Amino acid sequence: MEKQLVFGHRSPDTDAIVAAIGLSYLENQLGKNTEAVALGEPTAETRFVLDYFGETMPRVITKAASEVATVMLVDHNERQQSVADIEQLKVSVVVDHHRLANFTSNQPLYYRAEPVGCTSTILWELFKELDIEVPAKLAGLLLSAIISDTLLLKSPTTTLIDRRALANLAIIAQVDPAFYGPKMLRAGTRVDTRSVHQILAADTKDFIMVGHPVKIANVNVVAEADIFKRQTAFEQEMQQEADTGYDLVILMVTNILIGQVELLVIGNQAKIVETAFNKKLRQNRMQLPNVVSRKKQIVPALMVAFKH
Amino acid sequence: MEKQLVFGHRSPDTDAIVAAIGLSYLENQLGKNTEAVALGEPTAETRFVLDYFGETMPRVITKAASEVATVMLVDHNERQQSVADIEQLKVSVVVDHHRLANFTSNQPLYYRAEPVGCTSTILWELFKELDIEVPAKLAGLLLSAIISDTLLLKSPTTTLIDRRALANLAIIAQVDPAFYGPKMLRAGTRVDTRSVHQILAADTKDFIMVGHPVKIANVNVVAEADIFKRQTAFEQEMQQEADTGYDLVILMVTNILIGQVELLVIGNQAKIVETAFNKKLRQNRMQLPNVVSRKKQIVPALMVAFKH
Repeated sequence: MEKQLVFGHRSPDTDAIVAAIGLSYLENQLGKNTEAVALGEPTAETRFVLDYFGETMPRVITKAASEVATVMLVDHNERQQSVADIEQLKVSVVVDHHRLANFTSNQPLYYRAEPVGCTSTILWELFKELDIEVPAKLAGLLLSAIISDTLLLKSPTTTLIDRRALANLAIIAQVDPAFYGPKMLRAGTRVDTRSVHQILAADTKDFIMVGHPVKIANVNVVAEADIFKRQTAFEQEMQQEADTGYDLVILMVTNILIGQVELLVIGNQAKIVETAFNKKLRQNRMQLPNVVSRKKQIVPALMVAFKH
Repeated sequence: MEKQLVFGHRSPDTDAIVAAIGLSYLENQLGKNTEAVALGEPTAETRFVLDYFGETMPRVITKAASEVATVMLVDHNERQQSVADIEQLKVSVVVDHHRLANFTSNQPLYYRAEPVGCTSTILWELFKELDIEVPAKLAGLLLSAIISDTLLLKSPTTTLIDRRALANLAIIAQVDPAFYGPKMLRAGTRVDTRSVHQILAADTKDFIMVGHPVKIANVNVVAEADIFKRQTAFEQEMQQEADTGYDLVILMVTNILIGQVELLVIGNQAKIVETAFNKKLRQNRMQLPNVVSRKKQIVPALMVAFKH
């Protein structure tokens, strides 16, 4: 049977890696021949998760057309977030929880998106619908992705379905999220040992907003100062990014303990951020209490501001 | 609760009407406040189906933004097939079985597409997944849509899931598809009483193929001559359509008894059809044995031809 590759977005976070492993397992149970791969190296958090449950990191690729004709996407659909040669590939399956944009197929496909907090939550639903058992190790991986994407159910993206999935997977994996969750999240916030470049590249996404190229990176911390003590270095690196063709480069510094974000903003469209949140930038920074979600809070507000 | 409208594509066929009725019923069972509407008058086939099962035709609209802010789409996703003011509306749910194109959302949404023969088949799956009973009348409507879209399971778009859905719905509705199906399909093929304009408008879809506006209409017949005895009149009407800005206008004359299509082709890109099917047009016509599906056979072949 024709082999297919399964992968999440570039600069993969835990959900991008884990949902690929989960969908590949599910499709293989259904008789398909698939392999989970990744479009980048794992973050410190993902490495912690894979180590904890004894799973090996999927092979990292940047192109796919030389080995397969057809692929399955998880946790993304926008072409600029996908494998470099996506235009040459047929997409047979998409499982995602993001807005739908820059995605086109020549033929009908299986496309499953839900406005839930995590792709791995949808994976859990698919296992249930198809009456396929989730192995204990995979349950641990999926629940880690849910904890990661929802910041242990604190993000406004969290839905009742994410809560149900986490509770059910915790039983299968024999893991206590209240004990395991904070440990796992902290494993992803050690920023001092990483370069400015590494931090900006670790969890970054590109968007086209009403014609404007926009880059939004995120870094989770337990104290904002861990990042802003190197503010000038971040600004220089982000200005270099902007010079390659972005109208806006944003770093979200997300405090996962108290659930708020502070933005660092660079680019010729920086004023749009002030319009979007009706607040002034000070020294290129803006604190946003109760904001933690790029997808549900930052991106929609910017889209509205760009359209006006 | 905020009201939402549910509708299928313009020039609605039976699936577009019935899937809207089915999704609206399902969402209302889940506590939502929705109304099924239609983007055009019913075909003779749809009228037969609604009469047979004693359902009233949904209200016909062309715009929605004056009455609601949010809508749900069934059986389509491309903007040019949707309500005229789709750009002003938020889409919360899509249930579809077509290729994905020209669709964008600012926010995450529920998007469910499967490569099956009929949207109503996916509706049947949703009822099962959510453990909600399909009322007998709705089962009759859904099975009619499956018969319509798959030409009583003869179309190459037919999957095992469509077969299962039809068999299960037949039991609920207490209808024998082998007896009811041909009667229903024949009700949609009475072309002599309809004008050339009406026939071209009844089941037509617009596509943008590699930048080229393309219109593909379909008419089901039991004998091709029923259409081609008026070929000149069809050509004149199709040329008028082309003059409004289409590079290609195609009428698929589908013989539902033997399962083949004869194309009538007008427009400055008519040669593309010859490339797509490696066959010459004669008097603007081309017979394609074993071809019956616009979505799975005609559109992909044209897409490939336009790209080369």
